[in-house]
Amino acid sequence: MNPVRFTIGLMQMAMEADHEANLRHGLDMAAQAADEGAQVVCLPELFTSRYFCQREDTAMFDKAEALGGPTLRACAACAEKHGVAIVAPFFERRAPGLYHNSAAVFDADGSWLGLYRKMHIPDDPAYYEKFYFTPGDLGFRAFTTRFGKVAPLICWDQWYPEAARLATLSGADALFYPTAIGWHPHEQNQYGAAQLDAWMTVQRGHAVANGVYVAAANRVGFEPCENQAGITFWGSSFIADPQGVLLAQASHDKEEILLAEVDVTHLEDVRRNWPFLRDRRIDAYSEITNRFLDSDRLSPDDAT
Amino acid sequence: MNPVRFTIGLMQMAMEADHEANLRHGLDMAAQAADEGAQVVCLPELFTSRYFCQREDTAMFDKAEALGGPTLRACAACAEKHGVAIVAPFFERRAPGLYHNSAAVFDADGSWLGLYRKMHIPDDPAYYEKFYFTPGDLGFRAFTTRFGKVAPLICWDQWYPEAARLATLSGADALFYPTAIGWHPHEQNQYGAAQLDAWMTVQRGHAVANGVYVAAANRVGFEPCENQAGITFWGSSFIADPQGVLLAQASHDKEEILLAEVDVTHLEDVRRNWPFLRDRRIDAYSEITNRFLDSDRLSPDDAT
Repeated sequence: MNPVRFTIGLMQMAMEADHEANLRHGLDMAAQAADEGAQVVCLPELFTSRYFCQREDTAMFDKAEALGGPTLRACAACAEKHGVAIVAPFFERRAPGLYHNSAAVFDADGSWLGLYRKMHIPDDPAYYEKFYFTPGDLGFRAFTTRFGKVAPLICWDQWYPEAARLATLSGADALFYPTAIGWHPHEQNQYGAAQLDAWMTVQRGHAVANGVYVAAANRVGFEPCENQAGITFWGSSFIADPQGVLLAQASHDKEEILLAEVDVTHLEDVRRNWPFLRDRRIDAYSEITNRFLDSDRLSPDDAT
Repeated sequence: MNPVRFTIGLMQMAMEADHEANLRHGLDMAAQAADEGAQVVCLPELFTSRYFCQREDTAMFDKAEALGGPTLRACAACAEKHGVAIVAPFFERRAPGLYHNSAAVFDADGSWLGLYRKMHIPDDPAYYEKFYFTPGDLGFRAFTTRFGKVAPLICWDQWYPEAARLATLSGADALFYPTAIGWHPHEQNQYGAAQLDAWMTVQRGHAVANGVYVAAANRVGFEPCENQAGITFWGSSFIADPQGVLLAQASHDKEEILLAEVDVTHLEDVRRNWPFLRDRRIDAYSEITNRFLDSDRLSPDDAT
């Protein structure tokens, strides 16, 4: 049974080159958040490394770890020691040549709750994720911590209404989006504000459409990359309520711990007043599983 | 083939009690928008009447008209006379005892393009639409005008990501949302700003997630209702581009004509840079057609 309220915490981090230093720093921040009252915390995507997907390099696969590896053991120990449930993103080694961008979920006694594997994999200049990560095969899942039900989704997933919807239908009170998103230095002046606003808007839109809390934990700081322009990660981590109201938001350039309360009574009150789940036309959505609705246009004579 | 650019227009209207006066006024505004350069225009939901769904009254069904009725004939004539494609919402009489909240689409020569029947029907205090309107049975469809491809959706549909997605997959360049939404007078001070912001956010989120133009045409003004508190329709009609950037927005309390350009080259440029359609996990979305994912919790012993 869900209790009525719980406090969630996001770590907005700047990453160094050293894995151990990032792991220790991230878990120190999680411990501090727990001291401040957080009951479920979320670290940024791939938080133990710089964002290595800025280029394609097979040596980077050395960074991946199996489920039983030292990174997740450290996360479980931190959860147990500080009595805090943790959404812990990591680079998962599943088999030789088969890797995922994943997040493990540990309950507040360090026990294993389950695994999410990033379902939507981007591939854009300096975000060469399709080279590194096989798309997830576990679907969209909510996990029941002792405090409340949360669903991890990862970064590129945040642009997909289907992901937020399915996580909500799984019973999540809050969606967590560990993230690594930023500006290309040459684009920031012209497009930066619109890109950040679109990123906020689409996620706050998921909160509204689903009547669910949404929490995005991004990294921060400029990360250079050999023969590349580098990325300025834009921070701006935030927590929104089920009407999309911002409860907390971080700066675009500093490490921060964000805390906010998930109030399941408020969530139900919002859904009673805006009963979107009641009126879904599940009889009319089956074409969502089509790539595009153009099956009548498959010869060169058809209009474009 | 879609041309590269076309201009769309929204009528933000205040309604009187008289059907003929509203029809004439709405079409006068459409003609004026065409004079100002609009090529596809959209009128507000049920624009020929006050929002009669504030109470349940069988006499209101007298307002409904068949497809061949005088309201749509007047809309078609306006489209032809002014060379403007029109999205014309109306109260559809389909058979005795069977009525829809619909929108007809006419091309710029007055020819019939097709019909949309509101798929998601609300029922909230003072919005008693389930009494009046049978849910639509035509799905989510884009219509090819001579200027570009547009998909009508209606009001409550705007809260549903599935509707925006399916309309986009049908090939729409722009989604039109004729609307009748406002504040309960007793809620406006406390909740009004958050409600309006959520309404904007979820629709701008559809623009971002789908890389599509979104245009919402609302009514404006206070409409009293016998034995009811009445509704203050909040106007704020707007047009957003495929990144959710506001191109035009109306006041919350005045009649206005809004114009903006749909630039299909810009739409494609946005989608090339943020290729969300490329990475949809159509293999993993089939549970979208479930009401809720709780099939493992169907006995009283199961946790809630």
